[in-house]
Amino acid sequence: MYDFSTWGPTLRYVVEVIGTLAFALSGILAGARNHMDIFGISVLGFLAAFGGGTLRDVLLDRRPFFWVAEVEMLWLVIGLCVLALVLLRLGRLHVGDKAIQWADALGLGLFVASGVQAALVAQLPVVVAVMMGVVTGVFGGVMRDIACNEMPTAFADHRPYAVCGILGGWAYILGDWLGWAGWLVALFSIASTTGSRLLALKFDWRLPDWRNG
Amino acid sequence: MYDFSTWGPTLRYVVEVIGTLAFALSGILAGARNHMDIFGISVLGFLAAFGGGTLRDVLLDRRPFFWVAEVEMLWLVIGLCVLALVLLRLGRLHVGDKAIQWADALGLGLFVASGVQAALVAQLPVVVAVMMGVVTGVFGGVMRDIACNEMPTAFADHRPYAVCGILGGWAYILGDWLGWAGWLVALFSIASTTGSRLLALKFDWRLPDWRNG
Amino acid sequence: MYDFSTWGPTLRYVVEVIGTLAFALSGILAGARNHMDIFGISVLGFLAAFGGGTLRDVLLDRRPFFWVAEVEMLWLVIGLCVLALVLLRLGRLHVGDKAIQWADALGLGLFVASGVQAALVAQLPVVVAVMMGVVTGVFGGVMRDIACNEMPTAFADHRPYAVCGILGGWAYILGDWLGWAGWLVALFSIASTTGSRLLALKFDWRLPDWRNG
Repeated sequence: MYDFSTWGPTLRYVVEVIGTLAFALSGILAGARNHMDIFGISVLGFLAAFGGGTLRDVLLDRRPFFWVAEVEMLWLVIGLCVLALVLLRLGRLHVGDKAIQWADALGLGLFVASGVQAALVAQLPVVVAVMMGVVTGVFGGVMRDIACNEMPTAFADHRPYAVCGILGGWAYILGDWLGWAGWLVALFSIASTTGSRLLALKFDWRLPDWRNG
Repeated sequence: MYDFSTWGPTLRYVVEVIGTLAFALSGILAGARNHMDIFGISVLGFLAAFGGGTLRDVLLDRRPFFWVAEVEMLWLVIGLCVLALVLLRLGRLHVGDKAIQWADALGLGLFVASGVQAALVAQLPVVVAVMMGVVTGVFGGVMRDIACNEMPTAFADHRPYAVCGILGGWAYILGDWLGWAGWLVALFSIASTTGSRLLALKFDWRLPDWRNG
Repeated sequence: MYDFSTWGPTLRYVVEVIGTLAFALSGILAGARNHMDIFGISVLGFLAAFGGGTLRDVLLDRRPFFWVAEVEMLWLVIGLCVLALVLLRLGRLHVGDKAIQWADALGLGLFVASGVQAALVAQLPVVVAVMMGVVTGVFGGVMRDIACNEMPTAFADHRPYAVCGILGGWAYILGDWLGWAGWLVALFSIASTTGSRLLALKFDWRLPDWRNG
């Protein structure tokens, strides 16, 4: 799926696993916080981890889905759900906020880059490609929040998140337009997304909000 | 759509009609409970009856949708909406909880089996096939609840529902792997789903819930 | 996308722009009312403007999406988002309710007609074509409301809105069945939808609501 072909595939795979697990964990914790049962918690883990990429694949009309082509990812998330449920029950799941934020920022960067790349492969206009990148990175979390009957964090949190993804998406377009090698374009995009996200967290940047004038 | 070919097609059709109407009715009642207007109530009936199968068909990239191929099902649900609206208005729609639960359990069993079968026909891995079965059986109700601005019952009810569908899905996989005839596999799957659901209701089984540890 | 070929294409384009902008504005205002940030507000603008047509295209398995084929529409909505955000911030966005209602009614009429036409081109049964028209016209607003964590206005507002779309959808079918020219069928459908919507607003018609009997 993420065929940044000249990357070390092992490195890419490690990043992909970290990002997917971070996203899944955010869903599992949201389900537990809302007192869901084991089915609900697992669905939220799947929605958060695979929802954005699945929506992108539906919009791009790509089959098989990446979690069908790499079915071990599916088993990985199932395993994480089981493990997290056991640890939660034992009161032993203490995940540092910082660890989650870093893993989530990495996942966001990778997912945005993979979404932009998939859309460019499908020869879509650049503005649509950036949209697809943001959909891939952000809409898993949006589905997670809607399934919890909450307003999506990504829409109303006022901390830059999707905005970092938009930046990273345009970074991909820029690198591609400059004719850089594929691995460099991907790395530049991920660094832009993940870096700006981590800076935003560190310095507590805020987006303004709006009311009806 | 449900080509369990060696079943008596009439029996299958009767079960399909009962299941679809039970699902549609759950949507109609949810809409009325939320004081929706005639359009909202009808949309909820459609979402509950056809939402899960439609999502499965979108994910599997199957066209035409089953409610296009069997357009009389659509008319049936439209007719049910009109009938239910008239009866509700006259204060004469008294549906026994027990009747709904039985019909709903039958529908769940059939929808799960049909979803697994459709995914196996599309040559998907077995774990994905079970997921598709659960999506077919459960996500119509999830869409119904999201449209009512409620947390989906299937995620937080703590009564086994989707879990019964997962059981029935793996029962399908088991029967198929053992090389049983198509009608027997389908029957075994439906019996597992519907039977475990009815047992769970009779003995009031509960799923544990989770909080953040 | 809306190839009512013998229409003056300019007139059609003007109506399409007005309708799209009216729908986008409804999303932008909803996001601002819910104190979303710039990303959330923009997503709501996109969902309201393009959500219904995108869902229709997914259901009909049509690619490219109309906002990919006519990518200038996407830029138009991006521009509107930027402009509206600036004006909102300056406290200078005073849009008359009446202007919005007229533009929205025009958009609804056009979107319903375009949805019915697309479904008929895909050779779907007439009842499915009317459904696709209503999905095109109404589900952008439904997605907007779900993303705001509100019950969809179209389901519970008790003012005829989707019902006007259904009327206009069947008007399209009638005109088509009578063998009228394409431009006349489209015009008749739009006039039915938009006209009945404006009459309903003027005379404050209400749909009855329902409770569980």
